[in-house]
Parts: sequence; C-alpha cells; structure tokens
Amino acid sequence: MKYLFLTAFLLTGMGMVCAQNNDSLVIRKIADEILTNGQAYNNLRILCKQIGPRLSGSAQAARAVDFTFRKMKEMGADTVFLQECMVPHWVRGKKEEARILYPNGTNRSLKVCALGNSVGTPEKGLTASVIEVRSFAELEELGAEKIRGHIVFFNYRMNPLFVNTFRAYGDAYQYRGSGPAIAAKFGAIGVMIRSLASNDDDHPHTGTTEYVDSIRKIPAIALSTNDADILSRELKKRIAIRVFFKTNCRMLADVKSYNVVGELKGTEFPNEIVTVGGHLDSWDLAEGAHDDGAGCVQSMEIISTFKALAIQPRRTIRVVMFMNEENGSRGGDKYAEIARTAEDKKFIFALESDAGGFTPRGFGFTASTSQKARIWEWKKLFEPYGICEFYDGGDGADIEPLGKMGTALAGLVPDSQRYFDVHHAETDVLEAVSVRELKLGAINMAALIYLASEYGMN
Amino acid sequence: MKYLFLTAFLLTGMGMVCAQNNDSLVIRKIADEILTNGQAYNNLRILCKQIGPRLSGSAQAARAVDFTFRKMKEMGADTVFLQECMVPHWVRGKKEEARILYPNGTNRSLKVCALGNSVGTPEKGLTASVIEVRSFAELEELGAEKIRGHIVFFNYRMNPLFVNTFRAYGDAYQYRGSGPAIAAKFGAIGVMIRSLASNDDDHPHTGTTEYVDSIRKIPAIALSTNDADILSRELKKRIAIRVFFKTNCRMLADVKSYNVVGELKGTEFPNEIVTVGGHLDSWDLAEGAHDDGAGCVQSMEIISTFKALAIQPRRTIRVVMFMNEENGSRGGDKYAEIARTAEDKKFIFALESDAGGFTPRGFGFTASTSQKARIWEWKKLFEPYGICEFYDGGDGADIEPLGKMGTALAGLVPDSQRYFDVHHAETDVLEAVSVRELKLGAINMAALIYLASEYGMN
Repeated sequence: MKYLFLTAFLLTGMGMVCAQNNDSLVIRKIADEILTNGQAYNNLRILCKQIGPRLSGSAQAARAVDFTFRKMKEMGADTVFLQECMVPHWVRGKKEEARILYPNGTNRSLKVCALGNSVGTPEKGLTASVIEVRSFAELEELGAEKIRGHIVFFNYRMNPLFVNTFRAYGDAYQYRGSGPAIAAKFGAIGVMIRSLASNDDDHPHTGTTEYVDSIRKIPAIALSTNDADILSRELKKRIAIRVFFKTNCRMLADVKSYNVVGELKGTEFPNEIVTVGGHLDSWDLAEGAHDDGAGCVQSMEIISTFKALAIQPRRTIRVVMFMNEENGSRGGDKYAEIARTAEDKKFIFALESDAGGFTPRGFGFTASTSQKARIWEWKKLFEPYGICEFYDGGDGADIEPLGKMGTALAGLVPDSQRYFDVHHAETDVLEAVSVRELKLGAINMAALIYLASEYGMN
Repeated sequence: MKYLFLTAFLLTGMGMVCAQNNDSLVIRKIADEILTNGQAYNNLRILCKQIGPRLSGSAQAARAVDFTFRKMKEMGADTVFLQECMVPHWVRGKKEEARILYPNGTNRSLKVCALGNSVGTPEKGLTASVIEVRSFAELEELGAEKIRGHIVFFNYRMNPLFVNTFRAYGDAYQYRGSGPAIAAKFGAIGVMIRSLASNDDDHPHTGTTEYVDSIRKIPAIALSTNDADILSRELKKRIAIRVFFKTNCRMLADVKSYNVVGELKGTEFPNEIVTVGGHLDSWDLAEGAHDDGAGCVQSMEIISTFKALAIQPRRTIRVVMFMNEENGSRGGDKYAEIARTAEDKKFIFALESDAGGFTPRGFGFTASTSQKARIWEWKKLFEPYGICEFYDGGDGADIEPLGKMGTALAGLVPDSQRYFDVHHAETDVLEAVSVRELKLGAINMAALIYLASEYGMN
C-alpha cells in the first residue's frame, strides 16, 4: 500500500436529533482525550510487567489490588473502596512434567500445564496407557471396563468453522470443564485435554476444571495443540506407549482478597449506580494482558477521562476491578451480594470488558425490551468509533449475578479472531495488545457509560 | 474470560430471497473450505520466509513471480500467464548511517532508512545543522535564506485522532511524498522525516518520495518515531548540534519484470473479466507480509477454493499478482494497457486487497449508482463473515488504471488499527499476521468474486 485515501470514512451523522448531536460532541471529546492522552496501555504495562500474573490468593493479586486502588485515587475518583471477599487459593507448585514413554525405554517430553483448580498427582506422578477420545459419546461407548485405570485424552479441536471464536470455545469448553469429572466416573486415573486454543503452537492453555463432589477428583492437564497432535499420531501407531505426568498443584485454604471500586458520584441521581469493570485476577501462567488486564485498564480510563473533561455524571459510576473471575467468581458474587443489601441504591446498568483488548466490533445487551429499544437508538453514536453491531444478549461473568437482580447488562464485543491464540497461555502478554485497539475499546466503553449515566435505564 | 456464550452470533439470514439463499450456501461452503483447508498462510510463509523482501527489480521479486506462477498452475488455474513490464530498479546499497553530532565531539546514532526512490548522499555523507518543521507553511515562513544549506526535518506525527489510520496516513503522506522536493526548492541539502507510523518504536519506515524533474534531487531519510522524538528534544536544547547522514541508494536502469495472471475461464461469458489481486513486490526492508503478501495469497486462495468446491464461474476470473505497486505502479499500468487493447474482452469488475491481512470490516466500491444499488443487495450475505459495512468509494493502486476505463472497482477494508505499526518497516513479517484474520479476508474476497462472476455488473 503506497497511498490510499478512503473518503468513505468521513464521519457521518448529520441527520441526528439534537440531543444526539450534543452526545456525539461529548463522545468525540472522550475519543480525542483517550486517543491523545489515554493511559490504559501504560497502566496495562504496570499490571503485566511490574506486577505480572495475578491468580487469586497470590501476592501479585494483592499488589494489583493496591495498584488499582492507588491509581483510581490518583485519577481523581470521588471515593475508592475495597469489598472484602474470601477467594480460593490454588497453587500450581513446581512446573509440571509429562512424557510419552515408548516400549524401547525412550521417551518424548510433552508441553503441558495443570488445569486450574485441579488436584496434583501423587508424588511419583501418574503412569498409564492413554485412551484418546473426541467426545463424551465415545467415552460412554468404551465404558468403564475399558477406561478403568487409564488416562483419558480428550482431543477435541476448537471448531474452526465458527467465525466467532467464542462460539468455538463455548462448544469445546465441556471437555475442560467436565472432562475430568466424567472420565473419573468411568474409572480413569487422570485426564489430558487438548488445549482450548484456536491456533497450532507449543503453549499449553490452562483454565478451570469443575470437579463434582460425589466423584473422585483426578489430576488433569492440558497439552499444547502441537503436542496433542503428536500424542494422537503416536497413539495411532498402535505401539504400546504409555504416558507419565506429574503435577504439583493443590488447593489451599481460602484467603482474604478484595474487589476494588472507584466511584464518580452522580450529581442528580447519586443512588442510581452504573457499574463498569473487568477482572483483576489472571491465570498464573500469563501476564493476563488480554484476560483481563485490558478490561481493568479500559474501565479505569473512564475515571481519568471524565475527570480530564470535567464530565460530571448525573448518575453514580462505579468502576470495579473484580477479583477471582478465573477460578471462583467470588468477587462478582460479593459485588452483587452487597448491592442486594444496599436498599437505598439501585444498580441500573453494568458493563464488563472481558473478551480481550482487541478492536471493538460491538456490544451485547441483556435488558428488557423497552430498555433495548432505547439503547438501540444510541447505536449511531458509536459507529464513528468502529462499533458495527449491537447484539441481543451479552454480559460478563462478574456482572451476571447483578443481572439476576434485574440490572441491565452489557458486554464489550471485541474482534475475536486472536483471543484464543493467547487465552490462558503464557503468550497472553502486553506485546500481544495493540495500543490503538485497546484505546478504541476504552472509548466505546466510556461512551456507553456516559450515555447510561446521563439517561439512566427507565 | 472463563466462559461466555454469546447467542447473538447465531447466523441469521432467514428472510433472504431464494437466489440469496443459494448464494449464502455457496458462500458458507467457501468459508468452510478456507477455514478448514485454506493455504493462504502457508503460501504467505513461502513469500515471507523463503523468498523474503521483493522490491521491484530484485532477484527475490523474480523468485516471487516464479513461485506464484507455479503455485497457481498447481492450484488448477485454467491458464497462468505473465504480462511483461519494465520496472524501476532502486537499490538501497549498504545500510544507512545517521548520527547527531554534539559540539563537544560526541555523537548519538539514529535509526534511519533512505526513502524509496531517493538519491544517495555523496560518498562522505551529509553533515549540516537541522531545521525542524511541522508543516510546509512553517517551511515557507522560514524561507530560502534560513533553509539554504541545511537539512530539513519534517517532524509531522500521524494524527492519532483519525479513528481510521488510513486517513491519518493520507494526511501525513505529503511530507514523505513531497517533502524532499519542496525542501530542495528552498535550498535544503537533505531531508529527514518522522516515519509515517502509528506507534512509537525504533523501526524506521520507508516508502517512496516523489522528486520533481525541475528541482534538484536531495537525499532523504526516515527516522524511527522514537528517534524523531529524541532529535526534536535535542534540537529544542538550542545547543549547536549538527546531523550527519549517509545513504548509499541509487536508481539503476529499468529491468524487465512481470505481472502474474492466473485464470479461471468463465463458462457462459468468458469475455467478461472479473479481476482480483494484490501486489507481489514489497519494500526491501520487510518481508512484506501485510503489504502485500496478504493480498496476493488471499487472491490465489480463490483459485484453490473454487477448484476444491468445483465452482465453475460464469464469467472469467483473473487472479493478478501485480508488480511494482510500491515504487512505480508499472504492473497496474501494464494490466490496464493490455486490457484496453483487448477489444473482445470487457473488464467489468476488479477487487484489490492492499490494506493488510487483518480482520475484514468491509469493502469500498467505486462504481455507477445502478451497480452500487445491486452490490448493496449482497451485503447481508457477508455479515456472517465479519463484514459490517459497504463503503461508497474504494479501490486499490493497481486497479485504479482499470477504473479509468470504466471498470467497477472495489477494495477490501480490513481493520486498520495495526497496519501502520508495521507498514514499510522491518516489523512487517509473517508473525504479525493472524492465520484466522487472513482467512476471513480471503473468504470475503472469494465471496465477492463469486457474486461478481455469477451476476456480472450490468
């Protein structure tokens, strides 16, 4: 590309009604401020590089609480406060080992990581032959006699045919979420899954597995997608290979942690609360840049931007750094629990950014028909900033409990193509985030929060 | 993000008319084929890693011609042929040097590259004091007396306020394109420009400058954005610094090169030609992954996909690897020249992908009102694949000469946020391209070419 001038991108919107004209001017100011002076990327650098991985219960999670508390004060929030909650404290321990053991005594090492919340292996590890399946139906067909005493390998590839990769993740999630519990029911002694990843590489992707209380908890690991292919190929050769793996993870007692809440007080309806946030915890393998440092720094950007532009919201805005989304959701639950008992306050709207810091494409909304009709009228205001769709349905894991109280919910919908390349893997680092893409998300979030705080949700 | 299921992404389109239903099925097959078996990324790997930088006239450009010729044959094109054209042969020579020279005898080296098509410095380099300006108006105000004998430094930052970065590029382009010629008019002996880049880093970005025949050609280099900031800061200190730079580039005699054209013959209207392409040449500093290896491999993907699905187009499809877009546009000119003299053929439509291999957001169209009305009816067919807008106005540098003959033109519009981070710099490498994003572009291009070849442009 040498030179190309696309006249098509001239901002349109001449036909808008008067209120929208004023809103579009405010939103343009918000965009200009963030594009010129935005600090989201610098704050993300601190979360990623100075603090690092922030799994619930870790020292880094505590440092992230301190940092965002201090930062939101410094930005000029009217109040910053903590909401205490007890969180699970899972630790990975020493790095995992895994090897294919060949009958001739040689071995081949595999790139793996323990699944979040999983139990560790015995001290000497697990050694067993491996049964590969691609579905629960295959497992069932094999039955307990064939599975008992073996390691089950769920080699289910994220379906590339879903254009939106979140659908492919939703489809494949069952094997990570329930695979270990279901395989244990059939007598398996361990589980390996193909990483939930949209690309082929050497990085295993972690994420929680969900044991069932009545079923024995067995150790569970994820293989990198490349190594899942290698193991599958070796198994097809029908030589008597076994696999050894050793994990050193365990669940410790719950520890005290916090949501961090920064507030801009509403001038007219201070008891109507507009919530916006991301989750502060991240997996221990990664810097948690896209998941979900991005959502945190984009949300905080609303405070600094509104202060810089002297925007005084009519309703109270709460910027929330939720704790423990990844392996317990205790922060989200706590926020809703406190909201439920605050009878003088009405939690009218909540927005979460937890789908990566990529170029935004839209918002999804879970709200009443009349609320949605109103919200859809705003859509034109977002088009100059890359939003092309308002989707029916959308939220975030941390705000979902608020939804049950009747709060209207929204989720930022960024481009999804690269998210599951890095999600829950050591490749989710600052360098995988584009400054401008991150800013565009922050602009659209700030614009939506502006409108929600200005007009409410009646 | 632990788990999120967005029902909003279920494919819609139930209400479409019958022809569109059939078209939507064909397009779904195209998408499935590319998402499952697409070879675009593998072909891009060969262009980037095995062949490498492919500036017009270079041995690598010749190898790229051979590779794409062979590849399109292998894919099953009915015919593959070359269109000979003479191209400029500019060579960079030995790596450039540049330094700030301090009065105390120390120096600081600067990261620079010569602008494309620029003349080299004398053997001993240029040493002079530097006059920094931010606009041509400032230059004019200073006037020839103050500029004569100095190096002019155009420190114009790409305007971050343009949401679409191509607009910022269009706005800043003048300093690279015309800066050296205009500064020479005022007696400058050399020009430095701030790289046309949307990010702050240490990589200079090249690209053509356009001399004017009647004005002395002076050497011109681009500084990395970081070094432009450093130089500007040093100049503000008002100590008597000078700058030394030495470039070793020169323009050699034109050499013979080629467009490569792969054809799928139309079954019903073989003389109506639908053209699709990208440019095969790239700057010598970079692998040319986004610019424009992506456009080339996406275009070739149409041949392999149509063959795999046994789609026989009603009109003839020509997949064109244009030569010399970067520093001469001779390939595009030659293609149009041959088209003009082929009186039995009608070049009805041409699509170019030359804005990066990022997630597609839309297409821009330059066509008659009635053609556009027809094209806009297709828009719904593209929405499941990430297209959110059809823009009025759009083309590509290589197909523009066809447009002058009345051919309807289109340009793929990918997300623009990251393009100018890497454009014309050594960071434009395969690793900067996402497999899925590249494929989505190819899918939408193949769909558009399918529709154009099926329905024509009447």
